[in-house]
Amino acid sequence: MTDLTLADMPDPLTRANRQVVLRSRPDGMLKNDDVEVVDGPMPELGDGQILIRMVYLQMDAAVRSWLDEGEGYLPAVEIGAAVRGGGMGRIIESRHPDYTPGMWCGGGLPGWQDWVVADGDDPFVNAFPPEHDAVFQIAVIASAAATAYFGLTDLGEIKEGDSVLVSAAGGSTGSVAVQAARNLGATVVGIAGSDDKCRWVESIGAEVCLNRRTEDLAARLKEIRPKGFDIYFDNVGGDILDLALRRLAIGARVVIIGAISMYNDKGRPPGPSNYLNLINKQAKMVGFQGMAYVQRYPEAWERMWDWRREEKMDFKVDRKFGLENCVDQLNALFTGANTGKAMVQICDDPGPGPY
Amino acid sequence: MTDLTLADMPDPLTRANRQVVLRSRPDGMLKNDDVEVVDGPMPELGDGQILIRMVYLQMDAAVRSWLDEGEGYLPAVEIGAAVRGGGMGRIIESRHPDYTPGMWCGGGLPGWQDWVVADGDDPFVNAFPPEHDAVFQIAVIASAAATAYFGLTDLGEIKEGDSVLVSAAGGSTGSVAVQAARNLGATVVGIAGSDDKCRWVESIGAEVCLNRRTEDLAARLKEIRPKGFDIYFDNVGGDILDLALRRLAIGARVVIIGAISMYNDKGRPPGPSNYLNLINKQAKMVGFQGMAYVQRYPEAWERMWDWRREEKMDFKVDRKFGLENCVDQLNALFTGANTGKAMVQICDDPGPGPY
Repeated sequence: MTDLTLADMPDPLTRANRQVVLRSRPDGMLKNDDVEVVDGPMPELGDGQILIRMVYLQMDAAVRSWLDEGEGYLPAVEIGAAVRGGGMGRIIESRHPDYTPGMWCGGGLPGWQDWVVADGDDPFVNAFPPEHDAVFQIAVIASAAATAYFGLTDLGEIKEGDSVLVSAAGGSTGSVAVQAARNLGATVVGIAGSDDKCRWVESIGAEVCLNRRTEDLAARLKEIRPKGFDIYFDNVGGDILDLALRRLAIGARVVIIGAISMYNDKGRPPGPSNYLNLINKQAKMVGFQGMAYVQRYPEAWERMWDWRREEKMDFKVDRKFGLENCVDQLNALFTGANTGKAMVQICDDPGPGPY
Repeated sequence: MTDLTLADMPDPLTRANRQVVLRSRPDGMLKNDDVEVVDGPMPELGDGQILIRMVYLQMDAAVRSWLDEGEGYLPAVEIGAAVRGGGMGRIIESRHPDYTPGMWCGGGLPGWQDWVVADGDDPFVNAFPPEHDAVFQIAVIASAAATAYFGLTDLGEIKEGDSVLVSAAGGSTGSVAVQAARNLGATVVGIAGSDDKCRWVESIGAEVCLNRRTEDLAARLKEIRPKGFDIYFDNVGGDILDLALRRLAIGARVVIIGAISMYNDKGRPPGPSNYLNLINKQAKMVGFQGMAYVQRYPEAWERMWDWRREEKMDFKVDRKFGLENCVDQLNALFTGANTGKAMVQICDDPGPGPY
């Protein structure tokens, strides 16, 4: 991690577009050698478009998956292109009637670069008033909200009184899932990677959170919930998924949102060998694909903002500065080095304008 | 396989109860050394009970799973007890008003023995008129009907025009699933273990059936259904499940009814490493547990009898004679040696009486 601070960041209004471009497909974790920070072309604004100065880049596990060739839900990032990823910036110029300078804007998946031009009519482009809480937007709304909410409601079929298990509960998605499950009337058990994370997870609504590095998870889960879990919200895969498959209640739902433990593996990762327990427990394992919920995202967002106002939705961010730190900050997701939502701030917020 | 014929079978009305009892827990496939054919006690008939002379024993993969210690949906068969299993026999005596001698009766899970006493009020005991087709009952109704029907309808959410893939399609459950899927308006692709089985599967409703021993399944499935399958009806697990997980259509349902390829494995079998494709395809994997459908079994049975009358439900049986052949006939399910429903006939049908 390079030790940059806000003071090292370029002036936000300088029209120069630095980009982190992909040079080679990563083998395992993304390495700094796989990318290059270059002075890219400044994008040109056309009719119906908006020009955005990116301020915050959000680090999501999915970013890693987009770097591999394969059958993902989006095409692989091309060699030479800026790494794809979500973020928030300020609209600096607009040639679209719905947008005005000073608004916060996500710009679809703007990627790891300073400046982006987006089509105002692109359904993935959402703008917000200048006073919008862009950090909550990054940390909760734009990354975890739909996954946690629809994962629990639509796929998890959550009911009051359900017993829910959440892995990576101190992570950005897990921590939102813990709180959403609690807010929806369930009791929650978390699994996280450090005592600090566990205590935080307990402070935001888990009845108990187990440290996967120090606790005998199999024994403790059985002890805490002898009848098993109605929902297992999985974003780690691997051994913990296998273990959870042995602790299902009758009729349980296993919601698979990803497998952090596998994103960097080459070849075929091992599958969950206890999947046959789905038969014994009349259970199902359901894959959550955010793209299927695009039309309904606002429903999840509204609930999250409501919960935020009611002080029932806490969050943490792990913020580093400068495009040079994107790779390390992405990798933190997989090593568990970060606490809360990992993000990179690439310039000072230029404020609401005028510019 | 011992070469016994119907002529070698004991007189059905002799009151002597031979049993195949478990002597040791099998390591891998059940071996003849793990069991012993003994002269067991003749069961005594009490009030409200019926005495059944077993005629046909049906071989189901689940029988093997009941021999292991573990967390199954039924307790493990005890050492010294008759091996548990389904079958059909004639009621020879009745002390329950709903049953009369001459009726066919399943007697719950009577196990591998000549004579059984059952409680007339036991909900798992079903009797049928003397002229009932006991072999169709064994081959389709009592073994595959509920699994195929509810697996496709309730769990598979089958719709007209769906594309369905069935593995072990020449087996007893698979062949019923192929026909049920076709009868419910889907197009069906089968996978089976020999050319003979494949041709039969095609004759009963699959558009095409692939020989897993000679065909490049990955390539052929992609070629036959480029858009993937809406339903995969799995009763083999292992490599074929993994392969099918790569050929799912958006929103697909993978119905897991068992894993013949794993029943005889000790330790943790490998899980399906392509399970993460459930995310990309917004798909789910659902475990079928027959016990959950007991109250609704008649719904499946009625459909099967209707289809039988309409000549839209064919079946095959692989019949051997004598309790001495139970072990080999059970193992045939796992080696693929049988074609159609494996059963053992242990005496001549004593007919409808009077006895």
